[in-house]
Amino acid sequence: MEFDIFIQHSDINLYYATSFRAIDSAFYVTCRNGKDYLIVPDMEKERALRESKVKNVLTYGDLGYHDLRRELKDSRRARAEMFVRFLKGLKAESVGIPIDFPAYLAIPLHQNFDVKVVKSPFLEMRAIKTREEIERIRDTSLAILRAFEFGLKVLKREKRCEVVRDRIENYLYLKGYLAENTIVSSGKLSAIPHATGGIVEDHVVIDVFPKSRRHHYYSDFTRTVIVNRNDKIVEMLRAVIEAQEKAISMIREGVKAKDVHYTVCDVLESYGYKTLRQRASEGFIHSTGHGVGLEIHEEPRIFENETVLKSGMVFTVEPGLYYRDVGGVRVEDVVVVKRNGCEVLTRYRKWIELSKEQI
Amino acid sequence: MEFDIFIQHSDINLYYATSFRAIDSAFYVTCRNGKDYLIVPDMEKERALRESKVKNVLTYGDLGYHDLRRELKDSRRARAEMFVRFLKGLKAESVGIPIDFPAYLAIPLHQNFDVKVVKSPFLEMRAIKTREEIERIRDTSLAILRAFEFGLKVLKREKRCEVVRDRIENYLYLKGYLAENTIVSSGKLSAIPHATGGIVEDHVVIDVFPKSRRHHYYSDFTRTVIVNRNDKIVEMLRAVIEAQEKAISMIREGVKAKDVHYTVCDVLESYGYKTLRQRASEGFIHSTGHGVGLEIHEEPRIFENETVLKSGMVFTVEPGLYYRDVGGVRVEDVVVVKRNGCEVLTRYRKWIELSKEQI
Repeated sequence: MEFDIFIQHSDINLYYATSFRAIDSAFYVTCRNGKDYLIVPDMEKERALRESKVKNVLTYGDLGYHDLRRELKDSRRARAEMFVRFLKGLKAESVGIPIDFPAYLAIPLHQNFDVKVVKSPFLEMRAIKTREEIERIRDTSLAILRAFEFGLKVLKREKRCEVVRDRIENYLYLKGYLAENTIVSSGKLSAIPHATGGIVEDHVVIDVFPKSRRHHYYSDFTRTVIVNRNDKIVEMLRAVIEAQEKAISMIREGVKAKDVHYTVCDVLESYGYKTLRQRASEGFIHSTGHGVGLEIHEEPRIFENETVLKSGMVFTVEPGLYYRDVGGVRVEDVVVVKRNGCEVLTRYRKWIELSKEQI
Repeated sequence: MEFDIFIQHSDINLYYATSFRAIDSAFYVTCRNGKDYLIVPDMEKERALRESKVKNVLTYGDLGYHDLRRELKDSRRARAEMFVRFLKGLKAESVGIPIDFPAYLAIPLHQNFDVKVVKSPFLEMRAIKTREEIERIRDTSLAILRAFEFGLKVLKREKRCEVVRDRIENYLYLKGYLAENTIVSSGKLSAIPHATGGIVEDHVVIDVFPKSRRHHYYSDFTRTVIVNRNDKIVEMLRAVIEAQEKAISMIREGVKAKDVHYTVCDVLESYGYKTLRQRASEGFIHSTGHGVGLEIHEEPRIFENETVLKSGMVFTVEPGLYYRDVGGVRVEDVVVVKRNGCEVLTRYRKWIELSKEQI
């Protein structure tokens, strides 16, 4: 550890590290000497002792917060002062905080210690999944595939993207999965990657990324469904599928994230499409993928970065093409990196023409 | 405004201020001279122009981010430098940031400007609801009451708290509301305010706080249901209902939040129960209430604070008593402050004995 103490505030990293689901602000303090402390509001002590893996559970009250609040008449200054005193008591000189650590504590800590703002070390740990975590993401992936098939049936009779989206989300919820912001978009609106809604036209992009309500792990899946023939869309979709398959075929331990991304760019550019590395504002205008786990977007990023893929990493491979005058297409799967290749957790055919579907 | 510029990062305040739902990091910059800018990732420009109320939409690319990232080889340092240059270009000297503004930007801004960490001004604006917002919270409140009645029916035949919770959450979802972390707890487990689950024993605490999937506003409601007579629980519940009713009867514009809270404490202490102002660890161990709106916990807080209630504020009134050897009880409603009183949005009888329910 490059500092005496690291403080994680309450977010998914705190849950990952401690198994405690913070409702109000909680903090997880780890020391270079191996000691660790979970700091919670007074009323959460019982639940923290019951749910968390951390033995040393301290409350704000234990750290003198209530007296400080009465003295300073300002709850945030009191909390900052509580931390400064606690860390000085631990003889800390250098203190690591995550990039999104809240400013009301970050600046007072910066004024009292040698503060380093770093990517939370738990993010890096989370990037490599255990066998149990992979099984959870597989579970959510299989639920998505069933929901997608159900969505295709709805699409056969339905002309409003919103209705298809609602039916898919309801289906998933009753099976135990929560999908929010599901994308079902058609026509030119689909040229906006995160847009949703509208009337079903030539093709429909369906992008579903639920989490399990039981084990809380996400998965992520996109298919572009051809509804009525549009030659430009068909050509774009063929190129995207080729780019995605080529990228997936090269994924294995030791490969660099940026080489996966550039492979996608190479294929798309070979067909004359523009990409972000050419600073295009249309064409392939996002990264190739992102890690998936307790959050829908996490490490590793599959973009222009130097990250080296490791066994157990789980991420999306999701090239797309977006042109305002035509629309957008995208194909997305979730893969697990292995020593000599990768496993696709969302195995499903890539070319889907609604009129030919036997459903 | 006590600074030249205020920067809001992407959270619910950014949505409230701009109507733009940020998926990746976005920033809303407001200047003392009235100018404002919405800063979004390049691929979100179209959607930001379409969805947001802000006319000046700038992308990271527009602000030189991509060159800075190539030069500094560090995306966070590049983003910080992008902001420093942009704000210097606007001739800013003092810069306001919200308390939870991310540290990777807060510290570089602190090193370049006179930074003030403040409660986001949008939080204060959000505390006072428009008529339309109140109707949305009323809509969610009525959905809760129907779901609660449905939950009582389930409770008549069901002995597992988890099943009651799942049935209530499913009911709400199909009606268009998303409830997460719904509390259904019984017996001694209910002495832990945020615990859920277990077997239905003498009494059940049901605390439901969904948001609308359509308009995104929350409401919050708790009732304690007597299943089998337990004299201690019955006495606690009577005291809590009396405290809650007395608190609600005094709520009107001009009253201080802390006086509402102390009224609850007075009633509970008069029956010999302990409260947080006596630094008790059992008894009434949380605040009296919190604002409800686009977030489940927002301004105003109803605790030991000096906040003066204003017409249009919407918040919970939720006294409770918690004893490890007995269990916990809580009763909660959402109210809107009016000039001469308040309106309860979750009107429902407070004394509920399951055996006497005609359902």
